[in-house]
Amino acid sequence: MKLPDRLSILAAHERIRPYIHRTPVLTSSSIDEMAGCSIFFKCENFQKVGAFKARGAMNAILKLTPEERKKGVATHSSGNHAQALARAAKIMGVPAFIVMPRTSPEIKKRGVRGYGGQITECEPTLQAREATLAEVVRKTNATEIHPFNNEDVMEGQATCAKELFEEIPKLDFLLAPVGGGGLLSGTALAAKHFSPKTIVLAGEPAGSDDAYRSLKSGKIESAQSNTIADGLLTTLGTKTFPVIREEVKDIITVTDDEIVSGMRIIWERLKIVVEPSCAVPFAAVLKEKFRFTGKRVGIILSGGNVDLDRVAKLFG
Amino acid sequence: MKLPDRLSILAAHERIRPYIHRTPVLTSSSIDEMAGCSIFFKCENFQKVGAFKARGAMNAILKLTPEERKKGVATHSSGNHAQALARAAKIMGVPAFIVMPRTSPEIKKRGVRGYGGQITECEPTLQAREATLAEVVRKTNATEIHPFNNEDVMEGQATCAKELFEEIPKLDFLLAPVGGGGLLSGTALAAKHFSPKTIVLAGEPAGSDDAYRSLKSGKIESAQSNTIADGLLTTLGTKTFPVIREEVKDIITVTDDEIVSGMRIIWERLKIVVEPSCAVPFAAVLKEKFRFTGKRVGIILSGGNVDLDRVAKLFG
Repeated sequence: MKLPDRLSILAAHERIRPYIHRTPVLTSSSIDEMAGCSIFFKCENFQKVGAFKARGAMNAILKLTPEERKKGVATHSSGNHAQALARAAKIMGVPAFIVMPRTSPEIKKRGVRGYGGQITECEPTLQAREATLAEVVRKTNATEIHPFNNEDVMEGQATCAKELFEEIPKLDFLLAPVGGGGLLSGTALAAKHFSPKTIVLAGEPAGSDDAYRSLKSGKIESAQSNTIADGLLTTLGTKTFPVIREEVKDIITVTDDEIVSGMRIIWERLKIVVEPSCAVPFAAVLKEKFRFTGKRVGIILSGGNVDLDRVAKLFG
Repeated sequence: MKLPDRLSILAAHERIRPYIHRTPVLTSSSIDEMAGCSIFFKCENFQKVGAFKARGAMNAILKLTPEERKKGVATHSSGNHAQALARAAKIMGVPAFIVMPRTSPEIKKRGVRGYGGQITECEPTLQAREATLAEVVRKTNATEIHPFNNEDVMEGQATCAKELFEEIPKLDFLLAPVGGGGLLSGTALAAKHFSPKTIVLAGEPAGSDDAYRSLKSGKIESAQSNTIADGLLTTLGTKTFPVIREEVKDIITVTDDEIVSGMRIIWERLKIVVEPSCAVPFAAVLKEKFRFTGKRVGIILSGGNVDLDRVAKLFG
């Protein structure tokens, strides 16, 4: 396995640049006052398909051989990666076969279909997803593009932190959420190569704290799914875990109440729509304010694809 | 009465520039596809205090004499203007006396207090607001800064459309919401002086369609208040109406269902939080799509100060 390095992340950024947004960085004086530090929000909710996943998927598709492109790509994803891969595939004229749990939000399924992705539904378990995907790959000979356990995907996700470092120098901390670890490992590698003094931390839902436990035990622990942060239910991958163990300083866990409260502040103060999963690192900063007092803190807001019917119920 | 003209709007923009955001313009290919035209959203929800009102209030305060500044400013407002005036007053060290209906959303009262504004509550009728304000002015000798029926306020609001014209040339149409007409009259004057080929239209809630009826009858008609678009319940002013009658081509009315549906699309596709009032012009474009086919359409998104508890109930 060849890990993304300085040159490969630079190359990935050049490769995907025509197909992604350079997302804005937002600040809020009232939030800074509340948190006691200077927070720079990197708004990947404004990214294509509404999430950072557009980066990794685009990078992976662009690195396929012409032969591979003809056969297509396949993946299983509960949402954002599915849309991102379908979109990247459509841009390059590549067939996309997407395995999705039948419980995925309708908005995400509509998104995949809108990009011409062919959905195969399955039960919402990792086993069902993997078995269904294996069957799809067997039939189509498509290349599997895993949502996070894939070097090209990790390399693509690294470009998000790279952009933030270019725009906001001298960050003391940078936080990302952690699910399977694609964004977090990419972020950590970007920090290592482009801003080595920045300490990378993660936020994780207490109701699915497998990454936190994995760091403690030194091996990949299984995920639970007892949280509203439905983008972060996955277990770390064999490729993401070693990077996270090496490069991520700490993981801060937060309860669902803390997540909703953080999400509410982001909606009210920044006037932007973010997913529950996306509010996790900000909730972590508010929870452990003492660590960040007076510091320059970057936070990657990972995505904004919410099911309004569902999320609206969390308020009020 | 001296109407804002090209030079005075230019001067106002220079005057307020250090104290306001130049707000971003957002686009969405999926929204364009849905609407059949190219829409440019001028995002005043990202403005200071979360609404365009920061512009007019700042301009009015900066034009006070030193003597007037000492005595302070006073206004009645159901929300955004109150915060905007309190903020502008605080920046310039001017006392601010704000009359607010007791039914105003708590988030807006908190905002006013946070800027050091002194709130006097009253019953939620125009009569009660005006009587209470008169009493406050009598006691304090403060200068009244009306939320919209004030040339300096209209001039300040005009800077929003001016920014949009600078960034997005050759707009065929520009739409704003209409309540008291401060934003709409400022927008129309900006178009007249900076982009005379752009046709200015307004969106208005059918449940409070007094501006629509006023254009038809040629005199100022009374407002109803049968709509969720609570920022647009006011009647046109004696200073805004003549400008609107002269410079605004047409007013399109939309139902509350159309407003909520438009607001939902903005939240879901643009990933931003906007007020119900703010979604009215976009709902108008969707309703009368045939007028806009293939055109370049600017829409001023006026603000993002929502009471999440209340607005969340509108979805789902």
